[in-house]
Amino acid sequence: MGGTAKSVLIVTAHPEPASFNQALSTRAASALRAAGHQVVLSDLCAEGFDPAAGWHDFTAAADPDRFHYQSEQANACRNAGFAPEIAREQARLEAADLLILQFPLWWGGPPAILKGWIDRVMAYGFAYVDGARFGTGLFRGRRAVLSVTTGGTPARFAPDGVYGPIDAILRPISRLALDYMGFEVAPPFVSHGVPRISAEDRAALLEAWAAKVTALAALDPPPGERPADPLSLVPEGAWSRA
Amino acid sequence: MGGTAKSVLIVTAHPEPASFNQALSTRAASALRAAGHQVVLSDLCAEGFDPAAGWHDFTAAADPDRFHYQSEQANACRNAGFAPEIAREQARLEAADLLILQFPLWWGGPPAILKGWIDRVMAYGFAYVDGARFGTGLFRGRRAVLSVTTGGTPARFAPDGVYGPIDAILRPISRLALDYMGFEVAPPFVSHGVPRISAEDRAALLEAWAAKVTALAALDPPPGERPADPLSLVPEGAWSRA
Repeated sequence: MGGTAKSVLIVTAHPEPASFNQALSTRAASALRAAGHQVVLSDLCAEGFDPAAGWHDFTAAADPDRFHYQSEQANACRNAGFAPEIAREQARLEAADLLILQFPLWWGGPPAILKGWIDRVMAYGFAYVDGARFGTGLFRGRRAVLSVTTGGTPARFAPDGVYGPIDAILRPISRLALDYMGFEVAPPFVSHGVPRISAEDRAALLEAWAAKVTALAALDPPPGERPADPLSLVPEGAWSRA
Repeated sequence: MGGTAKSVLIVTAHPEPASFNQALSTRAASALRAAGHQVVLSDLCAEGFDPAAGWHDFTAAADPDRFHYQSEQANACRNAGFAPEIAREQARLEAADLLILQFPLWWGGPPAILKGWIDRVMAYGFAYVDGARFGTGLFRGRRAVLSVTTGGTPARFAPDGVYGPIDAILRPISRLALDYMGFEVAPPFVSHGVPRISAEDRAALLEAWAAKVTALAALDPPPGERPADPLSLVPEGAWSRA
């Protein structure tokens, strides 16, 4: 597959259309398309994605008397019972060889709208099941990368900086979410202090990002393949104990 | 103030009223009230809190042509222009000597509804301003503590576990959010593997948590005091460069 056309999903979480985050996503999309890849953009703020988990995730309830998230998600997987906006995002994700998450670092993590996309779309039975994680995760064979903008300068993210290294800050999402699901996670692309840098520095970041995503998309896929029916990997009802 | 009545805000982020997270918050509230403290509960899911940041955070726009979050937040601080649900949560927080965040660990972090509470309520000009952070943060003189439930067993959070130590996982919220704002952050209270433990173990966790919050509320306040007008600490318009 190296060098062949890939499907790429870019999920962007910034409320301002003229933001640098949006510019990064737009630049990545144009570079990837120019290289022959297919690109789908999930612009969460523009689409009005609802980040809050709840009964509205589902078109029917397995147990209306008690909201047990994983059980309801497993039920929705078996019965095509996800709400339309979740089913749409899952279809986009299932088709993607490369997943890009583009977001500003707010309080050490993604904005809630992106955390909610992870909480709701990465459902039990779709994104993970018992016993399938990390090296055996359901998204083996796929790549993912985070592109993050910060208000803080690089010095704040130095080993002795007040925030510390960005890799540690991003670890919950890179290790406990994407890596857990089986994605091969590339090192993050970080645009530091974007509110205060020059137009030339911004332009250089856009080109560096375009080059990085193009190189990532050109790679051979990592080993592994997504199973056709993830819930068949676990005994019936296993999730209901969770 | 040690031993005197304190104001405590408990923010809970779990969609199921019968969840162990809700039980922990209820137990903490009853123990604190029994010790003479005042307790306010923000039950984010029950209140339908909207986690997504946007124009709906504000009753008026400073610059309707471009959504610059910090500038709009500063403007709202100056003009009492926060939307009612944000103003309500800010008032609760401003009154609190002790802040408790109660949540299940989802994908290495708080559910989106709690991340959104932090993103939106902890606004520029209210929760932080340029030059006031960590030791000089606006919430000096207050304490905060995280109470977290996990699906994973303690072994997964061991130093050599697949997830690694919980302190590192919680660092974005404890260090980059609460500590940044000036809170004195107590070690987290962690209830591991709650879906699979016995009723006796759950009862023991509830009592340990009740004892911990009661002890925290009895402490003298840490040094420092919240300034009356945080925006007066920065030159006019400083935030618009951010």
